[in-house]
Amino acid sequence: MNRREPLGVAVIGTGRMGADHVRRIDRAISGARVAAVVDIDEERAEAVAAGVDGCTAHTDAAEAMASDAVDAVLIASSGPAHEEALLAAFARDLPVLCEKPLTPDAASALRVMEAEAALGRRRVQVGFMRRYDAEYVRLKALLDTGQLGRPLMLHQRHRNVASPPFFTSSMLISDSVAHEVDVTRWLLGHEIGAVTVLRPAPSSSGAPDGLRDPQFVVLETDGGALSDVEIFVNCGFGYQVQAEAVCERGTARIGDGHELVTSMAGRWGGTITQDWTERFAQAYDDEVQAWADATRRGEVTGPSVWDGYAAAAVCEAGVRALEQGGRVEVELAERPPLYA
Amino acid sequence: MNRREPLGVAVIGTGRMGADHVRRIDRAISGARVAAVVDIDEERAEAVAAGVDGCTAHTDAAEAMASDAVDAVLIASSGPAHEEALLAAFARDLPVLCEKPLTPDAASALRVMEAEAALGRRRVQVGFMRRYDAEYVRLKALLDTGQLGRPLMLHQRHRNVASPPFFTSSMLISDSVAHEVDVTRWLLGHEIGAVTVLRPAPSSSGAPDGLRDPQFVVLETDGGALSDVEIFVNCGFGYQVQAEAVCERGTARIGDGHELVTSMAGRWGGTITQDWTERFAQAYDDEVQAWADATRRGEVTGPSVWDGYAAAAVCEAGVRALEQGGRVEVELAERPPLYA
Amino acid sequence: MNRREPLGVAVIGTGRMGADHVRRIDRAISGARVAAVVDIDEERAEAVAAGVDGCTAHTDAAEAMASDAVDAVLIASSGPAHEEALLAAFARDLPVLCEKPLTPDAASALRVMEAEAALGRRRVQVGFMRRYDAEYVRLKALLDTGQLGRPLMLHQRHRNVASPPFFTSSMLISDSVAHEVDVTRWLLGHEIGAVTVLRPAPSSSGAPDGLRDPQFVVLETDGGALSDVEIFVNCGFGYQVQAEAVCERGTARIGDGHELVTSMAGRWGGTITQDWTERFAQAYDDEVQAWADATRRGEVTGPSVWDGYAAAAVCEAGVRALEQGGRVEVELAERPPLYA
Amino acid sequence: MNRREPLGVAVIGTGRMGADHVRRIDRAISGARVAAVVDIDEERAEAVAAGVDGCTAHTDAAEAMASDAVDAVLIASSGPAHEEALLAAFARDLPVLCEKPLTPDAASALRVMEAEAALGRRRVQVGFMRRYDAEYVRLKALLDTGQLGRPLMLHQRHRNVASPPFFTSSMLISDSVAHEVDVTRWLLGHEIGAVTVLRPAPSSSGAPDGLRDPQFVVLETDGGALSDVEIFVNCGFGYQVQAEAVCERGTARIGDGHELVTSMAGRWGGTITQDWTERFAQAYDDEVQAWADATRRGEVTGPSVWDGYAAAAVCEAGVRALEQGGRVEVELAERPPLYA
Repeated sequence: MNRREPLGVAVIGTGRMGADHVRRIDRAISGARVAAVVDIDEERAEAVAAGVDGCTAHTDAAEAMASDAVDAVLIASSGPAHEEALLAAFARDLPVLCEKPLTPDAASALRVMEAEAALGRRRVQVGFMRRYDAEYVRLKALLDTGQLGRPLMLHQRHRNVASPPFFTSSMLISDSVAHEVDVTRWLLGHEIGAVTVLRPAPSSSGAPDGLRDPQFVVLETDGGALSDVEIFVNCGFGYQVQAEAVCERGTARIGDGHELVTSMAGRWGGTITQDWTERFAQAYDDEVQAWADATRRGEVTGPSVWDGYAAAAVCEAGVRALEQGGRVEVELAERPPLYA
Repeated sequence: MNRREPLGVAVIGTGRMGADHVRRIDRAISGARVAAVVDIDEERAEAVAAGVDGCTAHTDAAEAMASDAVDAVLIASSGPAHEEALLAAFARDLPVLCEKPLTPDAASALRVMEAEAALGRRRVQVGFMRRYDAEYVRLKALLDTGQLGRPLMLHQRHRNVASPPFFTSSMLISDSVAHEVDVTRWLLGHEIGAVTVLRPAPSSSGAPDGLRDPQFVVLETDGGALSDVEIFVNCGFGYQVQAEAVCERGTARIGDGHELVTSMAGRWGGTITQDWTERFAQAYDDEVQAWADATRRGEVTGPSVWDGYAAAAVCEAGVRALEQGGRVEVELAERPPLYA
Repeated sequence: MNRREPLGVAVIGTGRMGADHVRRIDRAISGARVAAVVDIDEERAEAVAAGVDGCTAHTDAAEAMASDAVDAVLIASSGPAHEEALLAAFARDLPVLCEKPLTPDAASALRVMEAEAALGRRRVQVGFMRRYDAEYVRLKALLDTGQLGRPLMLHQRHRNVASPPFFTSSMLISDSVAHEVDVTRWLLGHEIGAVTVLRPAPSSSGAPDGLRDPQFVVLETDGGALSDVEIFVNCGFGYQVQAEAVCERGTARIGDGHELVTSMAGRWGGTITQDWTERFAQAYDDEVQAWADATRRGEVTGPSVWDGYAAAAVCEAGVRALEQGGRVEVELAERPPLYA
Repeated sequence: MNRREPLGVAVIGTGRMGADHVRRIDRAISGARVAAVVDIDEERAEAVAAGVDGCTAHTDAAEAMASDAVDAVLIASSGPAHEEALLAAFARDLPVLCEKPLTPDAASALRVMEAEAALGRRRVQVGFMRRYDAEYVRLKALLDTGQLGRPLMLHQRHRNVASPPFFTSSMLISDSVAHEVDVTRWLLGHEIGAVTVLRPAPSSSGAPDGLRDPQFVVLETDGGALSDVEIFVNCGFGYQVQAEAVCERGTARIGDGHELVTSMAGRWGGTITQDWTERFAQAYDDEVQAWADATRRGEVTGPSVWDGYAAAAVCEAGVRALEQGGRVEVELAERPPLYA
C-alpha cells in the first residue's frame, strides 16, 4: 500500500450496516475509498458498487481480497460469516475492521484469536464503536485522570424504541448488553468475573409476547467494581444510552442530553468550552464539506454575497450606534435579483 | 473540473484560520484536496504546502488560481485582502468559499456584489459557519415548521474568555456581533432596520482599559422582531454562544450544554434520539476514520480480538445466567502476550 | 401586643389575594392569627370571617384597626385603596404588610413616605415577595459574596400564560415589570436612572387585539449596570420567571427548572445539598403539619404501623443478605384488616 | 381535645431530631404547640422546654402523656425506646407520630402492630417523611395516573457525605436503605419478596476501615418489579437522593437538581408552572412568616416604603417610555434618612 494514496477498502456485507459503512467511507471520511464490496446477494452488491467510483462487486470475500486495489477489509456481514472472512484476511495479511460481535460465540472467537496470535501481530480492530463516541471518550479521560478516585460502580441504561422481529430474550444479552460489557471492561480496565441477570415482570406494552424485556444485568469485575445494566429494548419512547461512573470521590454521568456531568466536591455540572475552535469544530467541517459537495455538483449554496453585504451594513450602523449612542437606522442598497 | 476527481482547492491565507482549513480539507472532509496554498509570507506558505501531498505554494493568489490543479478557492486571508482575491476568482470563474467578513465595510462589499451580479450567477459562499452548526440547524428547522408560531424576539449571548490584544470597542460589533447579525437575518428571514448599542459600565476584571466590554446590542428587524445580543469578550470563564427564540406559542433555546430545549404547551425539554444511527453517527465516522488513519500508518489500534473474545465469553455467561437464574462465573482463556 | 400571644392581624381586602393571605395566616404560618377581615363587600367579608376562629368581619378598615384584637395590618385591597388604609394604620401606630404596588403612582407613594417619615420609624413592609423566594435569595447571597465580581447586566424573562381581560399595554410595565424593577434595585443595590421600552410586533396568538405584548424593557442603573426585561403576558405555554446576572467573572441564573446555575472558571452547574436537614426540610415541615391537621380532625393518615413493620422485615432480610451473600426471601406476617 | 385550640404535643426525645421537631412545631407549622418534652437527660429536657411558652419538661414519657395539656405524641427518641412509648400512648389512646424506624426489628414491630390492631383503629403515623417530599409526591402522582404504564424497575441512589462514627455495615441497610424500602413499597404499592445485597470493593476514600461502603441492594417486589438501590454513605461530595421509575411507556426521574424529569414519547423534560400562585407559594408563606416574626419582635424589616416609591417612579417613567418611545430618565425625590 502506498500511504499517499487513499486506502482501498473491501466492505464485506452490504446490508444496513455494510451499506452505511460504504457511504461513510465514500462521503464522510478522508484518506480511504471503497475499492470493492462483497455480498452473497449479487444484485445488492452490484447496486451498491454502482454508486461508488472505481468500486467492484463480488459474491466471494476471498476473491475481493485478492484484488490489487484492496488494502484493507471492513467486515459487516452477519456474525456467523465473520470467522471465515477474518481467516481469509489473515491469509492475505490484510488489516481488518470487524463489526461486533467478533464472532457469535466464545469458542469461535478463541479460534480467531489463536489465528491472529499465530501471525505474531495484530491485524484486527473490533467494532466496539462506543469507544469512539465523544461522551464516552470524555468519561474515560476523566476517569483516567484519577480526579474522582477509583471507580466503584457503573450504572448503565440501554433503551431502544422497539426490538426487531427476530429478537430473542438471550439477544438482549448477546447483542445489546454486549456493548455495556465492552464499555465496562474498557472504562474500568478490569475483566468481568461473574454475571447475574434479573428479570422483572415483562412489559406488556410493545414487547412481543414471551420476550423477557426488560432485563437487569449485574456484572462483577475482577477489580471489585460492580456494573449494572438496564436493558430495555421495547421502551417505546426513544433510544437512550446512559452511563454513570460512581467513584470514591465523585460521579460522572453521560447520556442525559447534557454532555458529561459530574458531581464532585459539593457541585454538579459540566465544563464550558474555552474556544470557538472547540465549540464549532464540527460546524466548520460541515461547512467546508457542504461547499465542496455543492461545488462538485456545479452549485453555489450557503450564505451569499448579499448576506455578507447586509451584515457589513448592519455592523457599520452598529459601530455608529456604539459611538454616538441612541438608535441608528440601517440603509441597504437594493437587492439584486440574483440574491432574491 | 471532473466531478469524479477530488476538488482541487487553493487556500488563500495560511494563518490560524487558513492553516486550519488546510488541515480540514486534507484530513477531515471527503472529495476535496488542497492543490495550492497562498501567503504573502513565502516561508509559511511553503511550510504548509510541504505537509500536503501534491500541494504547491504561492505568494500571489492570481498565480495560484491560474493552476490547472485548482478548481475552487477558499479565502482565509485578512479582511482587507478579500476584495482583490474575490475579483481574481471571478476573473477565472472559480467558485469561492470566503471567510467572514466578506470585506471590511459595506462599500467594498457592495462592489463585490456588483461584480458577482455582473457574472450573472453566484460564485461565492460566505463563511457564516453558524448556519452549519447542528444546534443552530435544529433551531432553524424548528422555527421553520411554524409549530412555535412567529418569532417575536431573539435573545443572544456571545461570550469569549478574553479578547486578543488588538481588539477595539468597535470590533465587538464588527467582528463578534457580526455573527449574531447573520444569525438574526438567517433565522428570522428579515433584514435588520435599526441598531441600538447600550454600554454598561465596563468590566474591570480582564478587559483592557478603555475597551467598552461588555456591550448590549438591540437589532430591530423589518418584520417587527427584536434581537438582543450580549457581547462580552473578556468574560474570563469560557466561550458561550446561546440563543433563545421567543415565539408566539413557545420558546426554543440552544447553547446551554443541552441540545435544543423548548418551552411549549406547559412543558420544557428536548427530544430523545430514536435510533442508534442518529445517536452514534459521529462515533461511527470517527471509528472508521481512526481505523483508516492507523492502517495507512501501518498500525492496528482500537479494540482487539481479545476484547471481542472477552465480550463473547461474558455474554455467553450472561445468557446462562438469564436462563438458569443466579450468578454465573465467567471463565476466560489465558490472555496471549500479543494482547497484553 | 403581648409577644407570647399570636399576632392578631387585620386583613384588608378579601379578594383573591386577600383570601389567600387569610388562609396562609390561618393554616400555613405560625405565631399569627386572623383577628379581623375587611371588605367593602360585606357578604364576602363575613363569609371569609366565618371560616376562621375568633375573626370579625368589617366593611371599614379604621373600625377593624380599632379592635383590641388587632396588632397588625395586612393590606391586600386594590391599589387605589392602599393610601387611606396605610394612613389609618399610621394613625394607630400599627405595623403593616402592604401588597405591591404600595400605591398606584409615585405622587401618592411619596405622600405615604412622608407620612411614615413623620412617624420617625418604619411601620411598613411592602409586598415585594420575590425577595423571599428561595432562588432569588440564593442569587442575592451569591452576588453579595463578590465571588463573581461586580454585576454588569441582568437578563430577565417574565412570562404569563394569559393576561386578565382588563390588562392594558401600560400595565405590562406598572403591574408586571414592577417586580423586575424591584428585583433589579434589590439585587444590585442601585437606583434606576433611565428606562427604554422596545415594542416588537405583537403576538397574534393569544394576546387581545391592541395589547402591546410582548415588550422589551431596558433599565439603566445609576451604578452603570443594565437590566433588560422581556415581559410577555400572553405567551400561552406557562408561567416563567427567569433571571441571569452577568458579572465580571461569571454568571448566575435562576428560573430554568434547575435551582441556581452558575457559569464560572470554565464550569457550569450548581451546588449539591450537603445534608438531609437541608434537602428534606420542607418535607419534614409538611409531614408534621399533615399529622397535626389530621389529628385535629380526629383522623390518622400517612404511613402505618404495617408500613413500619414491613420495612423492618425487609431490612432484616437485607442485613442477612449482606452478611451471607445471595438472595434472601422476605417472610411477612399476615396483614391485619386494619391495614388493608 | 378541642379542635379549635392548637394541638398539644408531647415530644419524646430531645436529641437532634427531637429538638428539630420542637422547633418545627413551635415556629414553622400552624395549629399545634409543644405542650411537653421528655428526655431521660433532665437538663436537656428542661433547656428545651424553657425555650417554648407553656411547655413542661419530663423524664418519663407516661407522666408527660398523663398531662391534660397533651393531645398527641411525637416519638423522636432512639429506636429501642419506641416500643414502650408507643404502648404508653396506646394505653391513653393518644395519636402518635413515630420517627422511623418504628422499632429496631421486625419482632418488636409485630408486637406494636398487634397492640394497635387490638385497639381497633389506627393511632400511629410512622415517620417515613419522603412520602411528604414534593418531588416524591409528584413522582407518585405521575405513576398513579397510569400515563407511563406499569412500573417495571426503580433505580435509586442514596449518597451521604460521611457516615457518623457509630455506623456499621448493616446500618447501611437498616438505617439508610430503610427509606428506599418504604419508597419502593409506597410508589409501587407492592410488598417486597426478596433482597440481594452486592458489595463492590469498599471505597478507600473517606469510609472507615472495615465498613462495607458502598453497597448495591436489589429488592424484588411481589408485583414483579425490581428496585435497585446504591447506598454510599461516605461519598464525600454531597447528599444525593435520586430515583428513576422505569415504566412500560416512559421513565420519570427525581433528585437531579431539576424537578421531576420524564422521558416519554420521544421527549425528555419537565412541566412548566402555569401560575404564580404555584411558582411562588412558598415565597408568599415565607414573606408573611418573616413579617409576623419581625412584628412580634417589634421590628420592621423587608422592602420599605422607599422601595415601593422608587418602583412606582420607575414604572411611571417606563409607561412614558412605552408611550412616547426612546429613553426616559427617572426623577427620584430625595431619600429620607429613615430609609438610608
